[in-house]
Amino acid sequence: MTTRRSWIESANDPGTDFPIENLPFGVVERSDESEPRIAVAIGDRVLDLRECVSRGLLSGQRDEVRRALSSDSLNTLAGLGRQVSSTVRRAVTGLLDAGDDRLRTSSDRDHLVRPMSEIRSVMPFRIGDYTDFYASEHHATNVGSMFRPDNPLMPNWKHLPVGYHGRASSIVESGRPVRRPHGQTVGPDGPPPSYGPVRLLDYELEMGFFIGAGSELGSPVPIERALDHVFGLVLVNDWSARDVQKWEYQPLGPFNAKNFATTISPWVVTLDALEPFMVSGPPRATDDPRNLEYLRWGDDVAMDIELEVAIRSTQMRERGMPAHRVSLGNYRDMYWTIAQMVAHHTSTGCDLRPGDLMASGTVSGPTEDSRGCLLERTWRGERPISLPDGTERRFLQDGDEVVIRGWAERDGRRIGFGECTGLVLPALGG
Amino acid sequence: MTTRRSWIESANDPGTDFPIENLPFGVVERSDESEPRIAVAIGDRVLDLRECVSRGLLSGQRDEVRRALSSDSLNTLAGLGRQVSSTVRRAVTGLLDAGDDRLRTSSDRDHLVRPMSEIRSVMPFRIGDYTDFYASEHHATNVGSMFRPDNPLMPNWKHLPVGYHGRASSIVESGRPVRRPHGQTVGPDGPPPSYGPVRLLDYELEMGFFIGAGSELGSPVPIERALDHVFGLVLVNDWSARDVQKWEYQPLGPFNAKNFATTISPWVVTLDALEPFMVSGPPRATDDPRNLEYLRWGDDVAMDIELEVAIRSTQMRERGMPAHRVSLGNYRDMYWTIAQMVAHHTSTGCDLRPGDLMASGTVSGPTEDSRGCLLERTWRGERPISLPDGTERRFLQDGDEVVIRGWAERDGRRIGFGECTGLVLPALGG
Repeated sequence: MTTRRSWIESANDPGTDFPIENLPFGVVERSDESEPRIAVAIGDRVLDLRECVSRGLLSGQRDEVRRALSSDSLNTLAGLGRQVSSTVRRAVTGLLDAGDDRLRTSSDRDHLVRPMSEIRSVMPFRIGDYTDFYASEHHATNVGSMFRPDNPLMPNWKHLPVGYHGRASSIVESGRPVRRPHGQTVGPDGPPPSYGPVRLLDYELEMGFFIGAGSELGSPVPIERALDHVFGLVLVNDWSARDVQKWEYQPLGPFNAKNFATTISPWVVTLDALEPFMVSGPPRATDDPRNLEYLRWGDDVAMDIELEVAIRSTQMRERGMPAHRVSLGNYRDMYWTIAQMVAHHTSTGCDLRPGDLMASGTVSGPTEDSRGCLLERTWRGERPISLPDGTERRFLQDGDEVVIRGWAERDGRRIGFGECTGLVLPALGG
Repeated sequence: MTTRRSWIESANDPGTDFPIENLPFGVVERSDESEPRIAVAIGDRVLDLRECVSRGLLSGQRDEVRRALSSDSLNTLAGLGRQVSSTVRRAVTGLLDAGDDRLRTSSDRDHLVRPMSEIRSVMPFRIGDYTDFYASEHHATNVGSMFRPDNPLMPNWKHLPVGYHGRASSIVESGRPVRRPHGQTVGPDGPPPSYGPVRLLDYELEMGFFIGAGSELGSPVPIERALDHVFGLVLVNDWSARDVQKWEYQPLGPFNAKNFATTISPWVVTLDALEPFMVSGPPRATDDPRNLEYLRWGDDVAMDIELEVAIRSTQMRERGMPAHRVSLGNYRDMYWTIAQMVAHHTSTGCDLRPGDLMASGTVSGPTEDSRGCLLERTWRGERPISLPDGTERRFLQDGDEVVIRGWAERDGRRIGFGECTGLVLPALGG
């Protein structure tokens, strides 16, 4: 497989997350312009699509598409459907191709192409609803065995992708610090509870995906059409307060344990870019139940995406040390696919809107070092992990920075997600 | 207590839900104007506030308030805070007062004041996040004893208002029919499950409240300031598929069982209008645990609001019979107050945005006929109720119309919520 080249040299670096084959969409602020604008990442640069439209560089697109590209979020563009965003992506690929002179030789070039270090990524979508699934068998089994030793995997788990509605207002962009929340918890002896800074703060490594084209209330999306409603994927850190969760979650599920912050990576990687990394899926064991018809699709896919969590403590930062990898998993291992999640979510006729976010739940693999949260990684603190500054972690400490990375790579082609980071600030008044 | 009079005669009718002391806000479409507009209900009329602004009748309001009143949803107005909406309400009260001539004698009067029968109410807010609580001890105990006979009320229940995030996209305005969903369910013998039209369709009578002024991520709202963030209340029907719920809800709570539709009444009754009906609260038994400080407020209130559910079958409609009351409860009976729900929701620093909706959970009282859903009212179908057309109901049938009404009444003053209605359509392809 030969790789395509861009006239932006950093995009041809084999280590970049953002070669010309990726071109993820995002929304950025630039200091020399007033409104946030849609952009794509390319190498260590971003291409400002709003300015491309205003300079006539995307004049082949329909009026409504050019208007959508001049918006301050991806909602309208994504809502036009996958065919439109694919067309835009192809047009942008043309502008950035090594053999194309239109943008490269334009006098506006340096205004349109900005160093990534000079822009600030903001939320790519105005998120309507956020849904979180629980799609990893390893995660569900591990956590289930801690919370319910006699009954780790519920009878429903292999028949439907278990999910729950999450809080959209507190979803923040990568890089925004996360304050350790206060919460209501009980000690090991049970009630009475107390209210104070949570002790068992955790991350959860997840993949998220944004809905593009919406669907009508009352009309389930058939599984074979499900991916037509998906715009692209991001990394998600579903911060969790385990002590709050344990006390509050029955019978209606997690609430305050997760509503204080969820971090997403800023660049939305399209399904088009990920297509070379789709493998047949989902994985099923021979004794797994056959799923109901509305959850089966002969062409369904898993995605071969490496997912890493790294931690950097205050001391490591002060000593100039990089974040230390604490887990490495792969999204391919998930039991439930994106298409199954969409089909199940809408199976009762629930409608989707452009910009809705769904997330996979913690991505954990079969091995200890592929477990995507500290609760599992340290087995609720019983097997702490060591950091290179000589300290141990059972759960997150103030000053810890959690860095999630994701990438798909094969034959010299790497489609990366960039980073999803967040620094833990001490609790208020603490 | 003397009641105030309006020059709109129907507002002085003792039976009206919308006397001049009420003036709930809503958003309406009118056939002779293009944009939806903010309005208040008064007797059997609505006053178009957008037109009031454009005719200079609300010139005493600040620019940003007049702009907010010219919007197509209540989000911006509500976001300005309770003081602003109270000021607007007082100004509108002045315009409608029997002794005030400004609007009454205006040549524009018949353009500004429209018969309610000639307008269409639409969604009053663009809803950001929707949260549903579980705040009735009677409901939680009844349902708990069916799903978990050995453990009806969880140990956490009297220490925190249990809640969960709901689906915002599928919240619809009163009057919109609700299609019986398909869903994944199991029969009495358990798995394997099947997918088809749900059999145990139910309503849940709830009170909802809309957030006005938002709050900052990371900053809990102290309970004594909680009501400053509440714009007003509506009736809610949290339609539920009990067969889906029973199979799916563990361990992360209800999901598809409730995401297919939630109906709200169109007129948002302000806390100002409800103030005369606030009574000291919440109710606590002597052996109930004392709540943690962040959930205690010396001036906290319960609200004395009567809540009724009535059902009208196809046959009753064909025979011209009115909807038949199947339950009558009172919102005063709830264990957890609105202020407690807001304080708990934000206790971890979760932010609120104008237009977020929170609902109380099913309002059930101590008696059988005050139970707010069929699951409880018929004790999961074991004790069916009779309708005047000679049929029985265990759960809802196709063609049933569910009518929820709410009102507070004392000394000849009645603050009503109007109706929250929805007609059950047969399942697709069924």
